[in-house]
Amino acid sequence: MITALCGGVGGSKLALGLYRILPPDSLHVIVNTADDLELWGLRISPDLDTVAYTLGGIAQQELGWGIEGDTFHALRGLETYGLDTWFRVGDRDLATHIYRTDALKRGESLTSCTAHLASRLGIRADVLPMTDDAVATRLLTGDRWLDFQEYFVRERHALSIDDVRYVGVEAARPTDAVLEAIRSAEVIVLVNSNPVLSILPILSVPGIREAIEGSPSPRVAVSPMIGASSVTGPAGALMRLTGHPPTSAGLAALYRNLIDGIVLDSQDERQRGEVEAMRIGVLATNTIMRTDADRDRVAAETIRFARSLR
Amino acid sequence: MITALCGGVGGSKLALGLYRILPPDSLHVIVNTADDLELWGLRISPDLDTVAYTLGGIAQQELGWGIEGDTFHALRGLETYGLDTWFRVGDRDLATHIYRTDALKRGESLTSCTAHLASRLGIRADVLPMTDDAVATRLLTGDRWLDFQEYFVRERHALSIDDVRYVGVEAARPTDAVLEAIRSAEVIVLVNSNPVLSILPILSVPGIREAIEGSPSPRVAVSPMIGASSVTGPAGALMRLTGHPPTSAGLAALYRNLIDGIVLDSQDERQRGEVEAMRIGVLATNTIMRTDADRDRVAAETIRFARSLR
Repeated sequence: MITALCGGVGGSKLALGLYRILPPDSLHVIVNTADDLELWGLRISPDLDTVAYTLGGIAQQELGWGIEGDTFHALRGLETYGLDTWFRVGDRDLATHIYRTDALKRGESLTSCTAHLASRLGIRADVLPMTDDAVATRLLTGDRWLDFQEYFVRERHALSIDDVRYVGVEAARPTDAVLEAIRSAEVIVLVNSNPVLSILPILSVPGIREAIEGSPSPRVAVSPMIGASSVTGPAGALMRLTGHPPTSAGLAALYRNLIDGIVLDSQDERQRGEVEAMRIGVLATNTIMRTDADRDRVAAETIRFARSLR
Repeated sequence: MITALCGGVGGSKLALGLYRILPPDSLHVIVNTADDLELWGLRISPDLDTVAYTLGGIAQQELGWGIEGDTFHALRGLETYGLDTWFRVGDRDLATHIYRTDALKRGESLTSCTAHLASRLGIRADVLPMTDDAVATRLLTGDRWLDFQEYFVRERHALSIDDVRYVGVEAARPTDAVLEAIRSAEVIVLVNSNPVLSILPILSVPGIREAIEGSPSPRVAVSPMIGASSVTGPAGALMRLTGHPPTSAGLAALYRNLIDGIVLDSQDERQRGEVEAMRIGVLATNTIMRTDADRDRVAAETIRFARSLR
């Protein structure tokens, strides 16, 4: 069993690689839910959906969010009625949010309704929300605190961020399924999602970091950084909030005590010494994943590398 | 000001005729809400929507429900997730239900959110739910009580019905807007909707029948019956539940004390004597409305006839 910690668009590519190369039913993906939002009375879990659509083979390829070939008729209707529609939800995508909202209202847990959705999409992996409790990433820009989606989607992550909080995380509990996925993992992978926006919220749920720290299995991170910027999204700029430089070596320092090895891009081979000095193993390879073949290769190299550690 | 009592598909055609021939802002339509349902956590008001879509000029013409040219991508998604999808909701239509559900959840009344929807659809008439309270038509077939939409949509109204109840109606209150629409009406029209499924639920809301009975203005019904069957739907078969024959004369008897005149089809001219014996005036005309010109003509004849009474 392999367990991955994952955010949305960036990380789901590697999660897909892992899913493709592993036997069925041997991957757990613990997914960030701190980006979840309630919109028009509907509960939306963007990262869970991106992972499920990606593993289910229906994700929109170009944009990275939503469903391939989706239409936006309902959204135009909501616009007619004067609702905010900067968060673009397609018609087919809407079915997911309607299902989830209704299931939660009927008393189902987010974990249980995510399992149902994933199973209906034919996914032979466990897609696990990090918690069934409410956690919300909020970002400070100047003197304004923004919700995550306001920052990321409405403002297109173009604002400079001075602080970040995962509101509610102290009181959140990891689910039994998450703790069991960590306990039973032969390898734990922190995928190349945005560290501040996707991985740290998961690690901040009380009990999850401790479970990973205590795991006897090899634990590796795949770095989203190349040089001082990230492959996708605003990871670099946000890294400085952690007090570490926006590099793969900075990421290794951020994940110290939590990982045994890091996969970084060949272009950052020169950071090897600095990372190894932290007693963290290094695999330098091409980490850019454009095709399924890239994803499979990085996934396979990551697992092989992890198994060589400890 | 003209006030119409109206159900969904059948009656909305005459409501459209009234809307088209009257000056803007001079029509109130009091609409049955006893067919409302909650589906997938969404609050659906089929008759309110049919009236709004019809007056707003976006109604699907052939089927009589839904929106012209609507697509069903979200519905197929809900089907994938294993939800019942016999109630066919289009993508654009879904926006209405999402808006309504969210507005009600935020504490808005059904009256207020219907007014918002109608205004956004450009409608210059008041579309008024009969009540803001919950009323549910239930139908007995053999020893099974069905919800209205189970009977009407899922079973395609093919079952024989032994009894009907408007659950919750005794405790429902008419809204101020409904009572004011009746009070201020120069003419009150009970349109040619199904009497048992659409008009009687409205009349059963305590205070509405009394307000119409007490009105000094002329009140007319347009009969949906031709011979012993109805122009559309199962009105004829259901009429016998009222203890009256399934004819326009039977309808006149059902509405006795409530109407001053009835518009019936020329084919039923021979029922004139029987109706006039109840001291109810008769206008016999062609009541089949296929085109907008038909709707305008029946609407105009109905108003002219009403004004000639009392």
